Amino acid sequence: MASQVSPSAGAGRCFEDFRLGQTLRHATPRTVTAGDVALWIALYGSRFAVQCSTEFAQASGYPASPLDDLLVFNLVFGRTVADVSQNAIANLGYAACRFLVPAFPGDTLSAVSDVIGLRETSGGEAGVVYVRTRGMNQHGAIVLDYVRWVMIGKREPRSPKATGYLPDLPQALSPNEIGGACPPIEVARYDTTLSGSPRRWGDYAVGEKIDHCQGMTVEEAEHQMATRLYQNSARVHFDQLGAEKGRFGRRLVYGGHVMSLARSLSFNGLENAFHVAGINAGHHVAPLFAGSTVFAWSEVLEKAVIPDRHDVGAMRLRTTAAKDRPCADHPGRVGEGYDPAVILDLDYWVLMPR
Amino acid sequence: MASQVSPSAGAGRCFEDFRLGQTLRHATPRTVTAGDVALWIALYGSRFAVQCSTEFAQASGYPASPLDDLLVFNLVFGRTVADVSQNAIANLGYAACRFLVPAFPGDTLSAVSDVIGLRETSGGEAGVVYVRTRGMNQHGAIVLDYVRWVMIGKREPRSPKATGYLPDLPQALSPNEIGGACPPIEVARYDTTLSGSPRRWGDYAVGEKIDHCQGMTVEEAEHQMATRLYQNSARVHFDQLGAEKGRFGRRLVYGGHVMSLARSLSFNGLENAFHVAGINAGHHVAPLFAGSTVFAWSEVLEKAVIPDRHDVGAMRLRTTAAKDRPCADHPGRVGEGYDPAVILDLDYWVLMPR
Amino acid sequence: MASQVSPSAGAGRCFEDFRLGQTLRHATPRTVTAGDVALWIALYGSRFAVQCSTEFAQASGYPASPLDDLLVFNLVFGRTVADVSQNAIANLGYAACRFLVPAFPGDTLSAVSDVIGLRETSGGEAGVVYVRTRGMNQHGAIVLDYVRWVMIGKREPRSPKATGYLPDLPQALSPNEIGGACPPIEVARYDTTLSGSPRRWGDYAVGEKIDHCQGMTVEEAEHQMATRLYQNSARVHFDQLGAEKGRFGRRLVYGGHVMSLARSLSFNGLENAFHVAGINAGHHVAPLFAGSTVFAWSEVLEKAVIPDRHDVGAMRLRTTAAKDRPCADHPGRVGEGYDPAVILDLDYWVLMPR
Repeated sequence: MASQVSPSAGAGRCFEDFRLGQTLRHATPRTVTAGDVALWIALYGSRFAVQCSTEFAQASGYPASPLDDLLVFNLVFGRTVADVSQNAIANLGYAACRFLVPAFPGDTLSAVSDVIGLRETSGGEAGVVYVRTRGMNQHGAIVLDYVRWVMIGKREPRSPKATGYLPDLPQALSPNEIGGACPPIEVARYDTTLSGSPRRWGDYAVGEKIDHCQGMTVEEAEHQMATRLYQNSARVHFDQLGAEKGRFGRRLVYGGHVMSLARSLSFNGLENAFHVAGINAGHHVAPLFAGSTVFAWSEVLEKAVIPDRHDVGAMRLRTTAAKDRPCADHPGRVGEGYDPAVILDLDYWVLMPR
Repeated sequence: MASQVSPSAGAGRCFEDFRLGQTLRHATPRTVTAGDVALWIALYGSRFAVQCSTEFAQASGYPASPLDDLLVFNLVFGRTVADVSQNAIANLGYAACRFLVPAFPGDTLSAVSDVIGLRETSGGEAGVVYVRTRGMNQHGAIVLDYVRWVMIGKREPRSPKATGYLPDLPQALSPNEIGGACPPIEVARYDTTLSGSPRRWGDYAVGEKIDHCQGMTVEEAEHQMATRLYQNSARVHFDQLGAEKGRFGRRLVYGGHVMSLARSLSFNGLENAFHVAGINAGHHVAPLFAGSTVFAWSEVLEKAVIPDRHDVGAMRLRTTAAKDRPCADHPGRVGEGYDPAVILDLDYWVLMPR
Repeated sequence: MASQVSPSAGAGRCFEDFRLGQTLRHATPRTVTAGDVALWIALYGSRFAVQCSTEFAQASGYPASPLDDLLVFNLVFGRTVADVSQNAIANLGYAACRFLVPAFPGDTLSAVSDVIGLRETSGGEAGVVYVRTRGMNQHGAIVLDYVRWVMIGKREPRSPKATGYLPDLPQALSPNEIGGACPPIEVARYDTTLSGSPRRWGDYAVGEKIDHCQGMTVEEAEHQMATRLYQNSARVHFDQLGAEKGRFGRRLVYGGHVMSLARSLSFNGLENAFHVAGINAGHHVAPLFAGSTVFAWSEVLEKAVIPDRHDVGAMRLRTTAAKDRPCADHPGRVGEGYDPAVILDLDYWVLMPR
């Protein structure tokens, strides 16, 4: 019986393994179910009525309760990890993220990514990879389309410097690019007592700052269960033994967990922002570890009408999450940087009934 | 761009914000699914056959496996927190809790509460609010009806003392008020091997004491996931940073989590008590924190026939839960108070096949 | 009101309570749902495409996504604990475990065990009980059939030594005994990009060793939720207070949790091993406690054709799990024993597309 050792399975790509224009068809399509929705609520405590009640969703114009937008994001993101970011040093940012078709329990999500940019770091020991990912449902419809970029180590730190290519990314989505995943809303039947607040789109002012009040302490079991639910297999979230040799000495909480916590906390004050239509820019300012308590606040950056829609209006928000620091005084940018408590800076569009 | 600060969202009501006769229609109706049921089992390990097996439930006379009664209770309770007890200092008690209609996966639960009593504390710095809550399904049928009272801080501790009103509450439900949520049971097809014990209603004696034997250690991630599953947003359960400035220095385990643990532990010795028909009185004697191990024992207080029902009998139980202390010697009342290990004193009616 | 104390409920059997030939029909049949599947993924992060995607499963030849084989195993095992191993000192081994019929969400699993062997320990203070367990679905079809043996304490350590009986157990299942739970696979429609690897049955060599690369740190909340999900009520997994007086001072992680972790980790390198067809032998070499990080590696022991099947081939694997030790150098047997990090030695058959 000959003994041989397999090429390391699940080792993931290094920077040298990416090519501009490369298409990566990701493994493990995933049928999303009511079980995932229950776990989503257990993990974040989200309370948006459209996503929680079949009857509320149907009265509002949906055929059924749609999946929470960030659940869709995390599930699509999870598909990409083994091919894109298994060896990521840092998840640097998101842009041009659009939700195009609503997703429902029973849908099967799969994902494909194109490598749209490559750039070595100035030191040359690592590189930044830009991918554009599309999440599809079982009918082939594109549910979600976004760009993210990650810093990835080289196999050979001294390998010669390649020619870089930086993709052209929009600062923000235009209001006429968003809203595809939101059916026509029957505003008269959207019950603002059941949704938790009478404040509609017209009641918010640009510049308004909203403290979401609550704090949520994160446990290791929670972020691990969430990250496994998304089938995101990046080692840094699960392997304490390996983490002890790393930069932080701790397991790192997946960034999508932070975004999901912030979104759920934002219910207090944004009760009728029932749909995240797009993410203009997302930045994980600092890492989060279990044991910290997450708070969040939002600022209304912009309000916009969506062409030909009288049912809903778009509101551009900047939601900032901080750790171990309540957000009543709105911690955020300080000079070129951030308040040291800030962990997430998320610029996105929500839809609200007019 | 004008900057303005929103009125604090999700801040909850202070004692002064309640009025006798006020009706609060709570936010976020919730469609309950098989996902919630799986989480219920994962969180408590409940083993009652009617709630676990479609075939067992159908043979017994249910159209499908009903939701566990305490899952229904916790979900209805969760709706009320933002309006009633966001700022509760203590959850003082429950009374007159009746399960009126069975609930099944697919049902949507919503809740309405009436303020039925108000009373200032003797010092005048806080008050007790009594609410009667009804949980409804998507057809408008009342699934659950109960009274609870909570101590709530004042916005202005020196605000003048108001006239109080104390509601008239029954010591216990009468047997002819309970059983509405239990369909006619086909006793001949109720399989006591599959249910876990041959002991039926006739086999228990008033005064009998049952040690439920097992202990269950509670983890932070578990009670947080449970409490979020119920969308109970009370800060004290989630915010370790805030808790460190509070009375206990720890996150407080939601009382409904303790009741659910006690109910699940009670399977050992009460295997055929498949339905909690009503709660006469419930009292959280002492707080529970993660890291403690919960034990429980029960005493049979009373046995009763339900008018016109020959299928099931009612048994009034007093289940006592204790922390970090096995219950083989039945810790309970000591003089005017309790054994220091006791955390829950629950007086309720269960139904069992005759 | 007479006060009486009930016989201890849920106390479980001691060695003296078992008789050769005894049949135990276990309590609490369990309807498995999409909620259980979502929890399975959240607990282990499994990524096998057949179990994750309705469309992938249907294209491959299944009517729907089947339940993960180890979820079925753990659920059937869970039924047996109250009757068989409530008081187990150690779970010694498994043999002759065959998956005979696929199980799907909506199926109800129940279990029956026969006592097929009894043997006192040499000291006479405990005994080993061998049971053969069958898991059935709601149609009465046998889904799973396996033998396990456990060491169980005596009620009376000095009770006279009984005549023992050791069952005859196979070293391994023959390839013609396995595969019943796998429908004919449409190999041409089995998409190896979506499944995560192009490596089919023909691409593996006997003697090949595969490091599954990733490590997974186990939290108390995770193994408790898993073990409760299976309704396995063995005290040692849940009661920290009791554990502090025991051998380890810690709650013991249920062995099936370790097997499930190892199976999920094995996706890296065994992406197309979509079905565990049988377990030849399983041995929990050492206990696992929360806080440890689990790694795994596998060796291909044997490859076999299943009579009359051209769609799939069988591969016999030995998967070894270790704690707090990466498995790149394949820790395993050392002389008569094992590397001190090894916790699980599992010998089983998987099926892969040819």
